[in-house]
Amino acid sequence: MPETTSAQQQLIDFVLEKFGAKAVTVDPGEVAPWTTDWRGRYHGDAPALLSPANTQEVAAIMARADALGVAIVPQGGNTSMVGGATPPPDGSALILSLRRMNSIRSLNPEDNLAVVEAGVILQTLHEAAEAAGRRFPLTLGARGSATVGGLCSTNAGGTQVLRHGTMRALIAGVEAVLPNGEIHNGLSALKKDNRGYDLNQLLIGAEGTLGVITAATLRLRPAIVKRAVAWAGVETPRDALALLRQLEARDAGVESFEIIPGDSLALVLEHIPDTRAPLQDRHPWHVLIEAVSERTDSPDPRAALEAPLAAALETGRIRDAVLAQNEAQADAFWKLRDSLSEAERASGPAVQHDISVPVATMPAFMIDAARAAETRFPGTHATAFGHLGDGNVHFHVRAPEGADRDRWYAEEAPVISRFVNDLVVAADGSISAEHGIGQMKLKELERLAPPTRLHALRAIKRALDPKGICNPGKLVTLAPEA
Amino acid sequence: MPETTSAQQQLIDFVLEKFGAKAVTVDPGEVAPWTTDWRGRYHGDAPALLSPANTQEVAAIMARADALGVAIVPQGGNTSMVGGATPPPDGSALILSLRRMNSIRSLNPEDNLAVVEAGVILQTLHEAAEAAGRRFPLTLGARGSATVGGLCSTNAGGTQVLRHGTMRALIAGVEAVLPNGEIHNGLSALKKDNRGYDLNQLLIGAEGTLGVITAATLRLRPAIVKRAVAWAGVETPRDALALLRQLEARDAGVESFEIIPGDSLALVLEHIPDTRAPLQDRHPWHVLIEAVSERTDSPDPRAALEAPLAAALETGRIRDAVLAQNEAQADAFWKLRDSLSEAERASGPAVQHDISVPVATMPAFMIDAARAAETRFPGTHATAFGHLGDGNVHFHVRAPEGADRDRWYAEEAPVISRFVNDLVVAADGSISAEHGIGQMKLKELERLAPPTRLHALRAIKRALDPKGICNPGKLVTLAPEA
Repeated sequence: MPETTSAQQQLIDFVLEKFGAKAVTVDPGEVAPWTTDWRGRYHGDAPALLSPANTQEVAAIMARADALGVAIVPQGGNTSMVGGATPPPDGSALILSLRRMNSIRSLNPEDNLAVVEAGVILQTLHEAAEAAGRRFPLTLGARGSATVGGLCSTNAGGTQVLRHGTMRALIAGVEAVLPNGEIHNGLSALKKDNRGYDLNQLLIGAEGTLGVITAATLRLRPAIVKRAVAWAGVETPRDALALLRQLEARDAGVESFEIIPGDSLALVLEHIPDTRAPLQDRHPWHVLIEAVSERTDSPDPRAALEAPLAAALETGRIRDAVLAQNEAQADAFWKLRDSLSEAERASGPAVQHDISVPVATMPAFMIDAARAAETRFPGTHATAFGHLGDGNVHFHVRAPEGADRDRWYAEEAPVISRFVNDLVVAADGSISAEHGIGQMKLKELERLAPPTRLHALRAIKRALDPKGICNPGKLVTLAPEA
Repeated sequence: MPETTSAQQQLIDFVLEKFGAKAVTVDPGEVAPWTTDWRGRYHGDAPALLSPANTQEVAAIMARADALGVAIVPQGGNTSMVGGATPPPDGSALILSLRRMNSIRSLNPEDNLAVVEAGVILQTLHEAAEAAGRRFPLTLGARGSATVGGLCSTNAGGTQVLRHGTMRALIAGVEAVLPNGEIHNGLSALKKDNRGYDLNQLLIGAEGTLGVITAATLRLRPAIVKRAVAWAGVETPRDALALLRQLEARDAGVESFEIIPGDSLALVLEHIPDTRAPLQDRHPWHVLIEAVSERTDSPDPRAALEAPLAAALETGRIRDAVLAQNEAQADAFWKLRDSLSEAERASGPAVQHDISVPVATMPAFMIDAARAAETRFPGTHATAFGHLGDGNVHFHVRAPEGADRDRWYAEEAPVISRFVNDLVVAADGSISAEHGIGQMKLKELERLAPPTRLHALRAIKRALDPKGICNPGKLVTLAPEA
């Protein structure tokens, strides 16, 4: 373990004295779980984990960190997919955990707004909204651990973006502590506010590199009155997108529209217990559709799906379809979707890419990019699944059979990733659709972003965090400018 | 007229030589119309107006301006309400007109996206969308002159924000030339893109102080199938908001919900020809409601309004209501709303404030702030009208009868404005809901913004426009930092 610097020790002593033992963890055994990311890919180190109880404590800590030049890694549920909340391995930063700030300050069903602290876990927010007859319409696999601060800082997505947008669309206000310890209070949920540059928008998705989000005002929706979940088999991604457009034209209340390749489904059926195929025959591609109604007087979502699916069957746009007969079956359909990554892991090494391209070009991209990758890297198997309607898929390339796991990850995977990312850039897409840059994609961002963009990102970072103490080594480095 | 500096002359010569006579206007008579804002409040001066034909020409001009240290004032339709597009009076800046960049590069009804150049006039965009069976759901009084670049740069609002949001919500991509002449191409309409700080969001509403927006990807909506326009009389703003909540709970397709005080309506009836009151009796407050349907199979908006209005009448929440019987009557209702400012101008001097507070607190604010202003400034008459559902009203204070116009504007109005703005800040609101800061509100922003916010705005401005050549004297000054 690296030695604690004198400046770090001064900050630790300051927090201990001002905010008590609850606010400081230095026992290496207790700090350890928070120095490795949840997928075990990034291993960092930190001499301490600081846990402020409120915004004023965060501000005091940041002001002191600024004065001492001590780097800070903000952390919520530690569920980053890109190592965004893992401290550097040299112990040069302290972890600033927001988990103690877990209060829902207010939840107003009349205005459909909730003011929620950074450490509130997504599932807790779901439950609180539900208790008030509302819902927070964003969910993802890590909902039992991911916190509001992290969701805001990464502009998180998930499976309901199609209708409700990413976090950016659901955030009405942001409270944050800037790198110099000043508090930005942007919580007031003004629907119109043109007083200059929108700091809230800048902090959303900044991955804690421009300050620490301490709370957010979030938009709620009416609770779901009824939902319908369907599973369809289709010939091509193009047919799947055409089906989605058909459903949207009728305003069928579609919230999720996930595409799943036939062979990925086969992996789930092979590796995950208690799963069965929703349709009798095998199909090249599948889609999982969820439609909901939010009002008792709205059309029944089941009926809203049934008619267009029947019509699509008749015209041959889809090959087969089934509606879940009850909630248990609906959950079983979703389990297939949610088990895709686990099933793939069980089947061998694979390298994953969270990418987006313009929606209209995604069907062709899914086919062409997979073919290109398989041709360029013989023996690999490339598949794409996920949020077709958002133009966002998880593009995975599996290692050839019999490949040496460690060697393949170390030598082949990075080459494959660069190849896939080049295809994405050529298609006018994004190498990070929803996971962010973190430390995983930092080098690729530097390689692929237009110089104009990199220059602007660095200028902003330098302007707001001149000492580079906020989540160093993530998103963008303060490399010397030309 | 101030003398043209040598650096300015070099830039003018450069543009003339590279891009021809079409790109340069130096005749004072031809430049003059663009040096005064459309309401005639701000008078500037400029030795030349540059009119690039495309993004590359803008980039070349900005690169040269940067090298020469020549300030530039980007201008579209010159319809700013806050002097945001008027050059400084000392002739120290050239005007950069975007009006020649008036092409709609693409309009794709399938994807509901249009890529539109900065100089396209809003009404032209409306017509192009309509021709494709779509609409661009943002409109405002200046639609015949306001351009897309200005609408993006000011995050414009209008009367459909309630359902469709401000420009920010309607912009899927931004192309801009940064102050150093680099082109930021953010046009690709990715629904998910988490590659670091969102430069598009930073440029939206930056009023041309961080660069020149040259084009935008805009979201379209289905064309309106049917609309219904209603007029209701209510006792209080609180009742009006309760009516809106009732309509929203039924998803009645309400796009506009405008509140109008009884005495403002009386001014319209008095001063504007061919106007008549929609309801027989006089009421303390009125609301104008527009509901629309975008699909042939959607509920008829007329029916969707009728039932809740009848119910509200029965419970006494509203005093009276009438539905427009045809399009002519609907237009006549809207004319009353759109004539409010003109009628007020005809009735004497008044000072206007475009302000917002959280929606739930707006009804009380409208009453309390008006009372406070009238008490503090005896003889004045304060009224608020506009976008109640957005928490945004135009708060006007009329001069006492017989007040000396010039003296009142010069001496009383600024004091009144500071008083009103103090009330807005105390109510956690914004002193600029939709018009921006420009030069009109710059001093008030500096007086009222939290130091943290001002510090951050200046840091961002300095980072992206270190020489201060982009729209100097607007939004925020580069005052020396502490």
